[in-house]
Amino acid sequence: MYRTNTCGELNISNVGQQVTLCGWLQRSRDLGGMTFIDLRDRYGITQLAFNMETDATLCEQARRLGREYVLQVTGTVIERSSKNAKIPTGEIEIQVSKLTVLNESKVPPFTIEDQSDGGDDLRMKYRYLDIRRNPVKNNLILRHQMAMLVRNYLSSQNFLEIETPMLIKSTPEGARDFVVPSRMNPGEFYALPQSPQQYKQLLMVAGMDRYFQIVRCFRDEDLRADRQPEFTQIDCEMSFVEQEDVLQMFEGLAKHLFKEMKGLEFGKFERISWHDAMRLYGSDKPDKRFGMEFVEVNDVVKGHGFGLFDNAPLVVGICAAGCAEYTRKQLDELTEFVKRPQVGAGGMVYVKYNADGTFKSSVDKFYGQDDLKALADKFGARPGDLMLLLCGEPMKTRVQLCALRLEMGSRLGLRDPQKYAPLWVVDFPLLEWDDETQRFYAMHHPFTAPKPEDEPLLDDPNRWGDIRANAYDIVINGVEVGGGSIRIHDRQLQNKMFHTLGFTDESAYAQFGFLMDAFTYGAPPHAGLAFGFDRLCSIFGGVDSIRDFIAFPKNNSGRDVMSGSPSPIAKEQLEELQIAIKS
Amino acid sequence: MYRTNTCGELNISNVGQQVTLCGWLQRSRDLGGMTFIDLRDRYGITQLAFNMETDATLCEQARRLGREYVLQVTGTVIERSSKNAKIPTGEIEIQVSKLTVLNESKVPPFTIEDQSDGGDDLRMKYRYLDIRRNPVKNNLILRHQMAMLVRNYLSSQNFLEIETPMLIKSTPEGARDFVVPSRMNPGEFYALPQSPQQYKQLLMVAGMDRYFQIVRCFRDEDLRADRQPEFTQIDCEMSFVEQEDVLQMFEGLAKHLFKEMKGLEFGKFERISWHDAMRLYGSDKPDKRFGMEFVEVNDVVKGHGFGLFDNAPLVVGICAAGCAEYTRKQLDELTEFVKRPQVGAGGMVYVKYNADGTFKSSVDKFYGQDDLKALADKFGARPGDLMLLLCGEPMKTRVQLCALRLEMGSRLGLRDPQKYAPLWVVDFPLLEWDDETQRFYAMHHPFTAPKPEDEPLLDDPNRWGDIRANAYDIVINGVEVGGGSIRIHDRQLQNKMFHTLGFTDESAYAQFGFLMDAFTYGAPPHAGLAFGFDRLCSIFGGVDSIRDFIAFPKNNSGRDVMSGSPSPIAKEQLEELQIAIKS
Repeated sequence: MYRTNTCGELNISNVGQQVTLCGWLQRSRDLGGMTFIDLRDRYGITQLAFNMETDATLCEQARRLGREYVLQVTGTVIERSSKNAKIPTGEIEIQVSKLTVLNESKVPPFTIEDQSDGGDDLRMKYRYLDIRRNPVKNNLILRHQMAMLVRNYLSSQNFLEIETPMLIKSTPEGARDFVVPSRMNPGEFYALPQSPQQYKQLLMVAGMDRYFQIVRCFRDEDLRADRQPEFTQIDCEMSFVEQEDVLQMFEGLAKHLFKEMKGLEFGKFERISWHDAMRLYGSDKPDKRFGMEFVEVNDVVKGHGFGLFDNAPLVVGICAAGCAEYTRKQLDELTEFVKRPQVGAGGMVYVKYNADGTFKSSVDKFYGQDDLKALADKFGARPGDLMLLLCGEPMKTRVQLCALRLEMGSRLGLRDPQKYAPLWVVDFPLLEWDDETQRFYAMHHPFTAPKPEDEPLLDDPNRWGDIRANAYDIVINGVEVGGGSIRIHDRQLQNKMFHTLGFTDESAYAQFGFLMDAFTYGAPPHAGLAFGFDRLCSIFGGVDSIRDFIAFPKNNSGRDVMSGSPSPIAKEQLEELQIAIKS
Repeated sequence: MYRTNTCGELNISNVGQQVTLCGWLQRSRDLGGMTFIDLRDRYGITQLAFNMETDATLCEQARRLGREYVLQVTGTVIERSSKNAKIPTGEIEIQVSKLTVLNESKVPPFTIEDQSDGGDDLRMKYRYLDIRRNPVKNNLILRHQMAMLVRNYLSSQNFLEIETPMLIKSTPEGARDFVVPSRMNPGEFYALPQSPQQYKQLLMVAGMDRYFQIVRCFRDEDLRADRQPEFTQIDCEMSFVEQEDVLQMFEGLAKHLFKEMKGLEFGKFERISWHDAMRLYGSDKPDKRFGMEFVEVNDVVKGHGFGLFDNAPLVVGICAAGCAEYTRKQLDELTEFVKRPQVGAGGMVYVKYNADGTFKSSVDKFYGQDDLKALADKFGARPGDLMLLLCGEPMKTRVQLCALRLEMGSRLGLRDPQKYAPLWVVDFPLLEWDDETQRFYAMHHPFTAPKPEDEPLLDDPNRWGDIRANAYDIVINGVEVGGGSIRIHDRQLQNKMFHTLGFTDESAYAQFGFLMDAFTYGAPPHAGLAFGFDRLCSIFGGVDSIRDFIAFPKNNSGRDVMSGSPSPIAKEQLEELQIAIKS
């Protein structure tokens, strides 16, 4: 062993001990008679002291060392004269008697500090240096801790972690597969799994009862900000359970994580139907760290000669407490915000409920003080509050108002990343209409079961949009961190579902035949859920970007700028695979 | 919840309780007045009793159920009249009052019993039924338990599990990569990792100090028996350690697994140099469950006029205790065994040390009784023993004798799968000569460090074969379950190593440039090891085939016969990827 201790563990109780430490030179300070070096490893920082009077040669040697040199030092733990209360080792330093340079380092392209001077691209290219920085390092440690907690919790609940294949059959349904040409079977391809969905259902047919896996999944999608072509799921499935059982099980897991990672305890998570979530927050993943629920005001605002409101199917707004003092400029900013193409509203109406009880609005021409008082009452607004209204086609307007609500939440500091508001969204629609292709798609996936009471609606295509699924999402702070459903375990119902989704018997069988066959040999009732593990880590880390929680992420072009992947491959390799590149 | 209890937990203390169970119909027995059903789930089997007298309708219903039907039953736990001591639930049965068929089942294509009537191919096609059988199910449970133990042990030793990418850069060195065409970067490819070797070394450069990962790896090799195109490694790396530290750490892990899984305790694992392993066992992975060490007998057998021995560079043999009574037929079988093309020996010489102290050999013409006594003394043989000798070119002969030794071990019942003999093989050669391409290859991989005392030999191409590596394998029962090495952390030495392996500066940089760059920014001394997890599980399961420990394995053509993968993909998919299939 190159060391007796790490750089994070020595303190006043070790004074007098002879120790050997290894690490990287974080910074050095030459004070003439003394030279100090901060030696860093994964566990912390320990100060090294070199004294010109005691050992001039060693001190001279220390002065010549550069940042990020790898050092091994032996010396005595002594009490510091000027202590640093910010770090656990701040009361001591090492009076060095022996110094070995284990490796030199070029000057790093950015500073290895919590606040680095390196831009995103540079830090990605030198990710191995970026990881030396505390923020990134701590994210990876958090991820490890989360994974250990998840595994031990689920294992204690009788779940078995079972590895499913990475080289699977390609299925055109859903997002695009990454494919892998098979050399041994020319002209044929494996696909990388978008999720182990079918395998975990097969494991239920196989009687494994409770399965989980922290597993890599792949999606060849055009990458929006903060999407990765490979990502990690906590994938789970259970047999002989109903929705309530699944919700309780994974609420238990989430509470366990909150308790162990954050010291937070929660009561029963709130549950909200998809319908209510859309109506009250304009989102199927409402951020419940703050209220500001939508209020629909058609009955109050219609018939006052304001054409925009009179003609809109829905007028809906939010009440921002204590914002009546917003300036013209601030209100204009909000109007600009909702008119941005990403939000897409035509405009915004504001109504100030002034502290003195009077009203001021952008529609004073159409509404008197009494009218606005009635509106305020509808909102439950109080003097000092600001009401913001949008109007138009209901679903579009709600989504626009959702963006405004989140913006107001941010402006008012109501979205503290250290505060957590978990909830369940339930009763999702089973099917989703797609205007472009003029057909219904499975909102979740084709194996999701309708609510038994809605099953008869499958026989009436006009009612397909009304069918509710036994599907559920777990949402934290406005982010969907997991979702799942009760699966169809009956082959007849599954066939009906495939037909609803536009599959022929043949096309369904070509894609899902082995699963359909399996279901004829005694499939148990089963259900499951998958958490997005990268996202879950980022929420627990209080950081928005999942990229910060992945050791070696790819950029928005799916490229690893550090290793230069993807890259061309040798002609011989292509020939062996019997494929050619088309230009 | 569909059930109050599992089928594995009810016993005499539950008598009188009202319970609901779910599971599969294992078998049913119609005894006229009574019908009994064995209900099976992952946890066990519980007997259900239906009585014609008490409830004829229910009993009639029960009689119509087929094998593998999925049932939900409610009833009362009662004491059995005829108990079954073989199963934990054998003292009770359920007097059923309510029966629900949750799903029907076609007649399964093979029996779901410990000894199934299904052949390999059929069981692979219906793997979801195969997994219902105890032997397969228990293998997967063992694998889960092993993974949990490994993770918790390594985590307690400050290792962090860090996920490395699956879509990486293709490197021609080593085995063939599976490649993944990039749609966003046409003409370019990702590779699937053969191991996270470079990433784990980068994590050491990144200061993560102790890394592990239970990780899927991929190798597009022609599949020999019991190789899988995707397999799982316990991949580990540590910084600031020497070989002794690594050996102790992972010996600790292995001991922990033996203790927890098997209740076995071991002292310090034996260590043997690669050179001695080859000399004494003809293998770099000796099976040490039994002795039967090689004895080299050149000095005793040469010069007696037996041309075969006189002309052979090496005459070497084993002594099989108590086998002097072997018949002509048995000896012929052994001769045939060594002459099989897989072994490749020209022939075998036997010497029987009879119980009466006389000798009988296949070379009596050349050796008198005294000569054979001298040979027996060399072997340390005793009356009743059988000596078997091979001769020829040293390394080839040793490998042939290894096969014979293992065969004798098997014949003598010395290779009990429930007995464990772990050991370390150390001091591997750094480089391996390949006759075909007339150059040296890295025996381990190009990042393995030579022993410091052998480093100067790198400057003398004539001595390259003599250089020993700081590399080590952990071997259990004649199987290499893990291996690793001290890595080169010095860029100069790494360059020298690349040149030795025939890389130019350019070709080395093209492949490993990002790793070589990383090493210029303060790489710490580091070392690692990887276990083959599938193999480790199979050893602990006492079964030879790794396939039995993989939920959904592929066959020798790399094909999953259950899902029918690989398979052709749609023309549109190929076009999007801008690749074509060559015929």
